[in-house]
Amino acid sequence: MRFTIKREEFLKGLLVAGRAVGSKTANPVLANIKLELNENGLFITGSNYDLTIKTQVPYRFNGVEIIRNFKEGGTLINAKLIIEIARKMESEEISLDVIDSTIATVSDNRSEYKLNCVRPEEYPDLDLDPTGTQLTLAKSTFDALVSQTAFAASTKEQRPVLTAINLEANNGLLTATATDSARMARKEVVIDPNVHFVANVPAKMMVEVDHLLEGLDSVDVSFSDKKALFLLGRTVVASRLIAGEYPNTKNIVPRVTNYHLEVNANDFIKAIDRANILSVERENVVDLSMSEDGIEISAKSQQVGSATEKIDVFKFVGQELKVSFNSEFVVAAVKALSCEDVKFEFVGEMKPFVIRNISDDSVIQIVTPVRTY
Amino acid sequence: MRFTIKREEFLKGLLVAGRAVGSKTANPVLANIKLELNENGLFITGSNYDLTIKTQVPYRFNGVEIIRNFKEGGTLINAKLIIEIARKMESEEISLDVIDSTIATVSDNRSEYKLNCVRPEEYPDLDLDPTGTQLTLAKSTFDALVSQTAFAASTKEQRPVLTAINLEANNGLLTATATDSARMARKEVVIDPNVHFVANVPAKMMVEVDHLLEGLDSVDVSFSDKKALFLLGRTVVASRLIAGEYPNTKNIVPRVTNYHLEVNANDFIKAIDRANILSVERENVVDLSMSEDGIEISAKSQQVGSATEKIDVFKFVGQELKVSFNSEFVVAAVKALSCEDVKFEFVGEMKPFVIRNISDDSVIQIVTPVRTY
Repeated sequence: MRFTIKREEFLKGLLVAGRAVGSKTANPVLANIKLELNENGLFITGSNYDLTIKTQVPYRFNGVEIIRNFKEGGTLINAKLIIEIARKMESEEISLDVIDSTIATVSDNRSEYKLNCVRPEEYPDLDLDPTGTQLTLAKSTFDALVSQTAFAASTKEQRPVLTAINLEANNGLLTATATDSARMARKEVVIDPNVHFVANVPAKMMVEVDHLLEGLDSVDVSFSDKKALFLLGRTVVASRLIAGEYPNTKNIVPRVTNYHLEVNANDFIKAIDRANILSVERENVVDLSMSEDGIEISAKSQQVGSATEKIDVFKFVGQELKVSFNSEFVVAAVKALSCEDVKFEFVGEMKPFVIRNISDDSVIQIVTPVRTY
Repeated sequence: MRFTIKREEFLKGLLVAGRAVGSKTANPVLANIKLELNENGLFITGSNYDLTIKTQVPYRFNGVEIIRNFKEGGTLINAKLIIEIARKMESEEISLDVIDSTIATVSDNRSEYKLNCVRPEEYPDLDLDPTGTQLTLAKSTFDALVSQTAFAASTKEQRPVLTAINLEANNGLLTATATDSARMARKEVVIDPNVHFVANVPAKMMVEVDHLLEGLDSVDVSFSDKKALFLLGRTVVASRLIAGEYPNTKNIVPRVTNYHLEVNANDFIKAIDRANILSVERENVVDLSMSEDGIEISAKSQQVGSATEKIDVFKFVGQELKVSFNSEFVVAAVKALSCEDVKFEFVGEMKPFVIRNISDDSVIQIVTPVRTY
């Protein structure tokens, strides 16, 4: 294999595929990027088994020659090194030449690297063919599904299924649910009523795909039993699915709520942030005290003192109530709703409460209070 | 004590004094900031014994009232908390009120903090009076003394004196020297010939003072046996000096050099940076190969491969020579010279070499090669 390539396009492709290469890989061959040059262009693949990203750099794009002076073939090169090299070289074009199956040179007019490389046959076979149920989602739809739920997924591996976003397509609705068992986020979007599936996609893979969607209009998704496949422009992303039954979250949303509070999202977040300075002993726990006379957020520490924040503008319906919660959870939920005013719905002191976007019923956030006595 | 103060001015003062408050303090009272209000304004002090910073916020500045509604007095408040609070409050003015000797309130119209505080008498007596030799240095002079030498001081505590910048005033020259024993940086500036002193000031304190000089024109320095005192506008900085004899570095600069190389500083740094990608096994060690025919920087790793960088434009006088060095040391030295072209002077493969600013003899950088066999 041999080619001379526009450095920026090469680097872009390496950075995309490189996102799937982990820092520690069980199989050392996966520390490499796979480069394959065939009649359709240069294909760059990175993988950590759980996530595989393959992207194409075409020979020409928008009438501009990107790859020239080439000979088809393939090789595996250490991902970290080739990315660093492509980033730091200064010429507009760089050349890569696999001299024999074990050494590749990467060069321009002032730099020459000789890199140990590996034959492409040693790379594992990775299945990147779309099978199963298929669906096209607009970028804005996919963005909303991910950004309004992913943060609520668990980051701990004790219950692997909770690290996923549960996707369920049914009756013309696609519902994304994430929960770490102390909070839950759910977002629904309208889809083709003929599409039906259930899949648990790791939340971090969904975030990865959302990141790669930058600059594109839509993504084609397909789900089979074991994997989700995402087609984004010239890039294919495959993610394993997480096995196991997702917990039933249908009954978590309370049907009847007795206390309704509407506040400005930004003021509320800032007040929590300030009160939080004093939540020293019980990290991040703050109290929300509500009555028709006033709304206060407070935090107390025997060691250092206390903080009390008044919320100036609000609407409140209900009796007096005090709820203590993990402020990080509530701030993340309020931010995810991304709207000016949010509505809280409470059942009682120790019952999970709801946070809503006042003008958008398709998303709901639930947080369980914490016990403070 | 009680006062209402412009929040931004209060925060500025807290951040300045807070720079001296360490995250771990042997004496827990030093986790506090000392606030003292007297007829000259509010004085804010932070200290970790080695470094003390005291800054003044005046009652009025440029015709604007900064402090009002006050009553003189003092208190000690946890530095981290009061800085966080002043940073996150949103009003233009905030009020601080020491209710009794153990509780202070900090408030504006929406936030109220009750903070545990300590009586000011519990703060250690810190001597901040200028004594001994005195000297005024322009900001640009102090900047140069610090930025061209401090990076070469040791960061390890085995030989404490090497963590200092050695300052020696003699015969109308102030010489700053720093060395970690593998490299040395030296800068001379012209001063009043009547000033004589020798002092070892911790390099990180010099960097701290240089940072605080931002926006000012000059600094008044005074040295006594045990401390250096810096007067910067409304701020006083006291640093302990490091006891012990500074090593004699006079003879480190080679008198006769046989190889002279001039290169563009920026090109040279970039070439080292690229070659460095391959200095995997011997971290940061690169080779510089010189002859009249060409200059190359290279690095080699059995594991991953090799890199060779050509330096395009250069002047070289001498026989063939190859020198291996710690690239971080050389890059730091070249950057500190902050000029377009730098000159290297070599004696031989394993002898310390010199890096100079071609048009400024007042600064010199020395690096010892590393053995690569």
